[in-house]
Amino acid sequence: MPIAKAQLQHLRALREKKHREALGLFVVEGEKVVGELLAAGFPFEELYATENWNRPPASAGAAANAPRLRPITATADEMARASHFPTPSTVLAVGRISREPLAAGALDRGLTLALDGVQDPGNVGTLLRIADWFALDRVVLSLDCADLFHQKTINASMGSFARVRTHTADLAAALAGLAVPASTPVLGCVLDGESVHTLPALRDAVIVIGSEGRGLSPAVAAQVTRRVTIPRLGGAESLNAAVAAAIVCDNLRRPR
Amino acid sequence: MPIAKAQLQHLRALREKKHREALGLFVVEGEKVVGELLAAGFPFEELYATENWNRPPASAGAAANAPRLRPITATADEMARASHFPTPSTVLAVGRISREPLAAGALDRGLTLALDGVQDPGNVGTLLRIADWFALDRVVLSLDCADLFHQKTINASMGSFARVRTHTADLAAALAGLAVPASTPVLGCVLDGESVHTLPALRDAVIVIGSEGRGLSPAVAAQVTRRVTIPRLGGAESLNAAVAAAIVCDNLRRPR
Repeated sequence: MPIAKAQLQHLRALREKKHREALGLFVVEGEKVVGELLAAGFPFEELYATENWNRPPASAGAAANAPRLRPITATADEMARASHFPTPSTVLAVGRISREPLAAGALDRGLTLALDGVQDPGNVGTLLRIADWFALDRVVLSLDCADLFHQKTINASMGSFARVRTHTADLAAALAGLAVPASTPVLGCVLDGESVHTLPALRDAVIVIGSEGRGLSPAVAAQVTRRVTIPRLGGAESLNAAVAAAIVCDNLRRPR
Repeated sequence: MPIAKAQLQHLRALREKKHREALGLFVVEGEKVVGELLAAGFPFEELYATENWNRPPASAGAAANAPRLRPITATADEMARASHFPTPSTVLAVGRISREPLAAGALDRGLTLALDGVQDPGNVGTLLRIADWFALDRVVLSLDCADLFHQKTINASMGSFARVRTHTADLAAALAGLAVPASTPVLGCVLDGESVHTLPALRDAVIVIGSEGRGLSPAVAAQVTRRVTIPRLGGAESLNAAVAAAIVCDNLRRPR
């Protein structure tokens, strides 16, 4: 049965954030990324696939979590009209946008990666992947970060988008609301702080990562209580945001 | 004096690797990247700039190293015709391509970052920046890495392109030629090796980093003598190449 023209246009419109927000839906396409999210048990609303799609075998976790969503069969021409890319894929998936509010007190416990105005969706995705690798408890995105539901963010996360708990919040206000700032330090990367190599084990902490060009916003910088430095031996002026975050995480997770 | 049309076409042609190789020249444009390389003392052959270019003040190091290259004044229209970008910059610089051969025995001493088929120029640039931060002795690129002289590589290196010693070589052959493999371990990142946290201090070592999609090539993998793992606590299947390289470097450079 052909897919209605209006439906194809609707799918295509989801490439733009304003349409995603209006409809509360996002789309990802591509065998790799859709396969990663299905393997992680992400509860898609709809799947569109051509007859050439090779569905990956269900992982044990995914099978237990969700009934197996049946794809709507699309022709190559229909996929081309729904696609966001010059070369359409064999599969396209539609998911519901949900933004879990940050509960009061949530930052007090566990390890949080907080992104302050990270602009590039690829960097946001890479940071989700790092948070997933190091089993951080959550990632908080400030209101001016790249969109979590942008295809580039989800691609770069390599499936971690479906595994990491994320929140979008007014970051400076959330940090200002920490119950006992002394027991939940807010770590900021600077060039003249204490060495990351001598950090103690921290069960509860927030690691704040600034934007690629401007670093931390003044309001978030004012909430940093522990200034941390990755020792530099050479000439580079800085490390990129994801690299710095990963080094801090590796040092926090290091057995003592 | 107007710039000859043939010269503008020549500059524009340098966006393609085959023309760069044929002429032995490369081009970078943009105030930020040209400023970074000038600050690092990179010996450009030619500079083209509009009257709107704000030349950054010379750093002490740059002034000592090289006479101050005078820019050829270009109109906005001339820059548009020479430019590689839809929005031309105020400055464009031409440099000479030089590829320093890897001398016999060079890998035996010091710390080397070896890139095995890293495809993305942005990743190659980020890896140069990491090598610079941690003051590695050299970076070796396999013959199938992204081009070192691509604008995206140089941009992503944030000036480290001008500071890091680089070589392009048949990587597997170079590793096979290590004089005393036991005293210069070849570190490869795997999921089931020894923890990077318990690595001893290594004065001499080669860190090999594989391609984004395929990892290490079989020929290079066969030369790995020390299999290293970044401990994983969560669900991500891997870390990206630059992040993994940076964590290994931070652990090698950690005071003991």
